[in-house]
Amino acid sequence: MNRQLAPVSLSDLRRPVEGELDLAAGELLRIVSADFPLIRDANRHLMQMKGKMFRPMLLLLSRAASGGPPGDMVTLAAVVELIHLATLVHDDSVDHSVLRRGMPTLNALFSHQVSVIMGDYLYSRAVIELARWPDREPLAVLARVTNEMTVGEMRQLEALDKLSYNEAQYQELIRCKTASLFSGACEVGGIGSPPAHRAALREFGLRLGMAFQITDDLLDYTEPEEVTGKPGGLDLKEHKVTLPLIAAMPRLSAAGRAEVESLMATPEPGDDQVARVIQAVAAAGGLEVARQGAVEQAERAEAAIETLPESRARDALRDSILYAVERRR
Amino acid sequence: MNRQLAPVSLSDLRRPVEGELDLAAGELLRIVSADFPLIRDANRHLMQMKGKMFRPMLLLLSRAASGGPPGDMVTLAAVVELIHLATLVHDDSVDHSVLRRGMPTLNALFSHQVSVIMGDYLYSRAVIELARWPDREPLAVLARVTNEMTVGEMRQLEALDKLSYNEAQYQELIRCKTASLFSGACEVGGIGSPPAHRAALREFGLRLGMAFQITDDLLDYTEPEEVTGKPGGLDLKEHKVTLPLIAAMPRLSAAGRAEVESLMATPEPGDDQVARVIQAVAAAGGLEVARQGAVEQAERAEAAIETLPESRARDALRDSILYAVERRR
Repeated sequence: MNRQLAPVSLSDLRRPVEGELDLAAGELLRIVSADFPLIRDANRHLMQMKGKMFRPMLLLLSRAASGGPPGDMVTLAAVVELIHLATLVHDDSVDHSVLRRGMPTLNALFSHQVSVIMGDYLYSRAVIELARWPDREPLAVLARVTNEMTVGEMRQLEALDKLSYNEAQYQELIRCKTASLFSGACEVGGIGSPPAHRAALREFGLRLGMAFQITDDLLDYTEPEEVTGKPGGLDLKEHKVTLPLIAAMPRLSAAGRAEVESLMATPEPGDDQVARVIQAVAAAGGLEVARQGAVEQAERAEAAIETLPESRARDALRDSILYAVERRR
Repeated sequence: MNRQLAPVSLSDLRRPVEGELDLAAGELLRIVSADFPLIRDANRHLMQMKGKMFRPMLLLLSRAASGGPPGDMVTLAAVVELIHLATLVHDDSVDHSVLRRGMPTLNALFSHQVSVIMGDYLYSRAVIELARWPDREPLAVLARVTNEMTVGEMRQLEALDKLSYNEAQYQELIRCKTASLFSGACEVGGIGSPPAHRAALREFGLRLGMAFQITDDLLDYTEPEEVTGKPGGLDLKEHKVTLPLIAAMPRLSAAGRAEVESLMATPEPGDDQVARVIQAVAAAGGLEVARQGAVEQAERAEAAIETLPESRARDALRDSILYAVERRR
């Protein structure tokens, strides 16, 4: 990164599209609304979980940065958040997660059944909106992206317990699982702009998403539950192999390697065991390599949007890269 | 029904669209195909399960009966089967079912996780195809229908253990859960035909779907596993309240009512207990009322397509009503 690293707040990033984001939040409520009590209850809980609306923000900033008229993609911004939400609901159900953003997950509060059905409900509502949209392109982009995310989830199942899991597999996993929706959100924002701009935004989103997910995986090693809203070391507890561990593996001491193998052989590892593995991974430089990996993706994201005309929105997109790699939750 | 009840075979029904149905089966394989080994394995299993392709057949017959050019909706026929398949995969996961069509379910053979993700994979592939389709109408119809099915699944969760569940709630449940996709398949077949024909096919599919599901629920009471490919009395074992029981409730003897209450209070009812409840429901006339309910819907289905011009395809649609209510699996 050529620019000085300074803390960036989410509200700074949102500023150029603040009004539109508020409208998108309202659209989200409209799109998911239901008569059936159980769905209404589940909706109410999900809406309280309030995400950062990071993906809708990226879409709207991309729209502005590529010269689109303000306000014309508010519904699509809501749809992108909705697809994200549907994915989270199914992910939590698949992972049996109990906490998300510091709140109980839908599967913890209701049931596994409600989660599976609710994810389908949310996604099919998103598709209904996309089917109504005058231009077909957003649907084409977001349908492809959603399918990629499911492939990412399948890949995730393979990333459990497998100490032979390598960096190329990890990169492909996070590209599918996370970066594809970032990329899709930014690309949708660029629909109608010159093809080079749309391609630049697509690449930007992809790289930003990679940086975002690597950072997420790092935070699992470095930050406690009070900060992230979900238990620290959770990936290790669930035997999920992410970049810090992959990077550390070939450099671990014999003792460190034994710790890792012992953790992977323990069905429900305790906090102490997790802490010892985090220690070993850090000592072998795994956290540093992962940090470096995030920075590398961040630089590619920054390079991707250099060709866009200068604007406040483009500046905010650039700042969102810093936010993605510097955030603590 | 005005016509004589004679056994109708599926191959009779299929005849007018046989060639197209074979093509649709090939399209299905193309649409779901994947590089990733786990998805390929899951696909292979699902394709072996081979459904009756009843919904694609209805779509293609509706197409022919409303005067559409032959062959132009083969891909949409495959998409309808794919949506059905995605729904089955999630249903089996939600219900923890182990058998479907005489074969192990995806959740039994792989895992709950694979089932949730695989259902999402299949559905998002269906959406990709619909997004590519030149006409937007099929997507609009099938997106609405898919969302209705999720509402039906939510309603299903409420139909457990609730002896106060009434017939109106049951009708609404099966309309969402089953009849909506039948109706959508037939309506899609009628796209481009005069609005009255399209509306007739939509209504036909709705009524046929209701008759089909009531019959399905009856078969759970009357047919053993050897015939249906899934355990007999399964609904009662899972405390699912369907029409035979709803109809029997107000007419049960005190002893019969006690049997039902005891079954509902038993977490995993045994075969004997289930058999006694089936006996009580039959004695109280519950099976007869359900049969009558299916016939009533069948008559409405038949009336709906009277306005369509005479054709082999329309005859096959009429015969499919008989098939739906007379089948044993």
